[in-house]
Amino acid sequence: MHTDDTGQQGGDSAGNGLLSRRQWMQIGAGTAAAAVVAPVVAKESFGQEPWRSGSGAPPSDYGDRPSMPSLRREQISVHPFGPQAGASSTPLQLLNGTITPNALHFERHHSGIPEIDPASHKLTVHGLVARPLTFDYDALQRYPMQSRVLFLECSGNSYRNTLAGAIDETAGGLHGLISSAEWTGVPLHYLLDEAGVDASARWVIAEGADAAGMNRSVPLSFALDDAMIALYQNGEPLRRSQGFPMRLLVPGCEGNLSVKWLRSLKLLSLPAQTREETSKYTDLKLDGKATQFSLRMQAKSVITSPSGKMVLQQPGVYEVSGLAWSGNGSIRRVEVSADGGGSWADAMLQSEPGPMRAVRFRIPWRWQGQPAVLQSRAIDSAGNVQPTRAQALTNVAPGFSYHFNGIQSWRVNADGSVRNVYA
Amino acid sequence: MHTDDTGQQGGDSAGNGLLSRRQWMQIGAGTAAAAVVAPVVAKESFGQEPWRSGSGAPPSDYGDRPSMPSLRREQISVHPFGPQAGASSTPLQLLNGTITPNALHFERHHSGIPEIDPASHKLTVHGLVARPLTFDYDALQRYPMQSRVLFLECSGNSYRNTLAGAIDETAGGLHGLISSAEWTGVPLHYLLDEAGVDASARWVIAEGADAAGMNRSVPLSFALDDAMIALYQNGEPLRRSQGFPMRLLVPGCEGNLSVKWLRSLKLLSLPAQTREETSKYTDLKLDGKATQFSLRMQAKSVITSPSGKMVLQQPGVYEVSGLAWSGNGSIRRVEVSADGGGSWADAMLQSEPGPMRAVRFRIPWRWQGQPAVLQSRAIDSAGNVQPTRAQALTNVAPGFSYHFNGIQSWRVNADGSVRNVYA
Repeated sequence: MHTDDTGQQGGDSAGNGLLSRRQWMQIGAGTAAAAVVAPVVAKESFGQEPWRSGSGAPPSDYGDRPSMPSLRREQISVHPFGPQAGASSTPLQLLNGTITPNALHFERHHSGIPEIDPASHKLTVHGLVARPLTFDYDALQRYPMQSRVLFLECSGNSYRNTLAGAIDETAGGLHGLISSAEWTGVPLHYLLDEAGVDASARWVIAEGADAAGMNRSVPLSFALDDAMIALYQNGEPLRRSQGFPMRLLVPGCEGNLSVKWLRSLKLLSLPAQTREETSKYTDLKLDGKATQFSLRMQAKSVITSPSGKMVLQQPGVYEVSGLAWSGNGSIRRVEVSADGGGSWADAMLQSEPGPMRAVRFRIPWRWQGQPAVLQSRAIDSAGNVQPTRAQALTNVAPGFSYHFNGIQSWRVNADGSVRNVYA
Repeated sequence: MHTDDTGQQGGDSAGNGLLSRRQWMQIGAGTAAAAVVAPVVAKESFGQEPWRSGSGAPPSDYGDRPSMPSLRREQISVHPFGPQAGASSTPLQLLNGTITPNALHFERHHSGIPEIDPASHKLTVHGLVARPLTFDYDALQRYPMQSRVLFLECSGNSYRNTLAGAIDETAGGLHGLISSAEWTGVPLHYLLDEAGVDASARWVIAEGADAAGMNRSVPLSFALDDAMIALYQNGEPLRRSQGFPMRLLVPGCEGNLSVKWLRSLKLLSLPAQTREETSKYTDLKLDGKATQFSLRMQAKSVITSPSGKMVLQQPGVYEVSGLAWSGNGSIRRVEVSADGGGSWADAMLQSEPGPMRAVRFRIPWRWQGQPAVLQSRAIDSAGNVQPTRAQALTNVAPGFSYHFNGIQSWRVNADGSVRNVYA
């Protein structure tokens, strides 16, 4: 059941206290302030805060570390034999807005982070082309570039919610293999046009310069449409952990298509069927067959606040806020439920919409101290609706769950604690 | 004289080699690759890069430092008696896109960076209100928020180009007191509505919790229109150097209105006439009179590449790229000249447009090894055109140049070196 400003529960937008922002303002503005979030009526005399007694630190050549020691990536995993394979997650519950600072972007490396000399690194375009070409870093800097804010999501993101029991974890710990940045680089079709694509070419295999030679086959149509060779992330040259000096970026697709430390693009008539597209990153079904090349990440959302391991200190109004994204276009709508999917209200989308970018959604919620189950549901511009957990796990072989996009449920207990649940 | 695709100089967009992207593609695609930026025809055998011989570094809890040691803020100035006053500049020439990483955001502090305990910090709204209110950090976290990408520019930015002789400096060294971020916070009008603004109120004096008690008077109309209490910058909680735990943000206005470490907002019927709006941040004219409260930063642009102290290694096609912004709305158009203002071509605007945000502009340029003078000129949605240096200095008292927005000229010499000039 979907309701908006139709008056459910005495003027709420949906069950269990969801409000439109207009409704929130009617509560807050011009009334006793305590109705909202209990600011204290001010005394006109101020205290003398200790940090005002003398001058602070001077400006510096590179910014101070973040203000909170807890602002760190989560779920850091390293292969027991060494750094061959590992990952780290963005702490979604500590962030707001849509941009992920580069130091907190998720990582997934197959053989650690190589230390590449940009003056020696080369990118070769070859295979089914008229003119095989090699580009160095300085040459690419001279090409026309584009800048786009895009999400990047690991195909294994959220897999822990496919396990039998719901793990008590944070939003970042469960879903933090998604991050967003403004990427700047050279549209790939410029380089392919220059090399001259053979009429028989259908795929491009991209390979990284890490020791693993991580590689993936990318449909040529994706490569010609909106892929880019990214050189900058959130304004600055790529960090080594994100592919310095250059990486492929295939908007909306599972993260490992966006090959880091890119050294080779070879055009082929068929996909290369490498390890990362046969034994890995495929979707195994209950009958033992698998879907290959499920490249586009599907409509998905997660509430980042309130979320797992947080504690609401007192009843009152809170903003429910989170991220929504889809590899099939832009996010058209996000609905939020406070009663475990019994009723839904439209959240406000609070960032520039656009294809393949995550949006921030927000809705006020009046928590009255009773248990509640918070959920969000994304709907993309192609009409795809984020499925429930059960729907998303239909016909999925146990323990083989890439591309999981089921709805996240956060249970708010009467004591204010918030926990991951299956609902 | 303005020209676009009208055929000047054999198909160029404007004099001395400016091309539309379409013209650039006609040169590049399907022709000898050397016509563009001379990529090397590839050999099918690859070298064995040394960084592929073994695994690299593992993932980490907080990102590696940037890939280039030179990626640092510039023009770091500290008061000789201590950190009371200081500044640092964003290295614009090393960045691309529109976002400034937080660690490279410009700084201007009046008494250094205080170490504030967020649990003890309070923001008080008082003066001409019905209910004086105090908000702590946790309370503000519960309010409905907004996220906006905005530029922030110090009113003293670019002042070195008002001096008698043109200084040989980088783009960041001359103009780096502008940065951009996605800011997230609470719209100020929510707090003012809750406090109940008295009908006689016209101004708000904002004060920081630094030892200087930095303060500025903000027109109430600005405060009610689009100001916010910012809590997050590019996703993460504010850094201490940018106002942690909270700062005011007044979009489009000179930077010091966006008071960092915000502790007090007092509503007044008149501006407070503090030091920072009487002896400083005013525009002294030749007749000894001064303009006060020139709050909105005017239409402005700067080419960041090619720019001062760079060296073009060889003739050929380069992308000319830079930033444009205006405190009077959004950027409508940016024109680029390669002949010192003799002719102009429209650059491509390459980011989401929007009020009070900087856009990236781009245009291909074919440099044939002759001297050239590169300029850019911003035109905003209110129709304001960025003035020449001479126009911008009309009726300005020498040595007293806030709010300078004159056109920047970069001279490209025959040896490829680029230098700041007055043209």
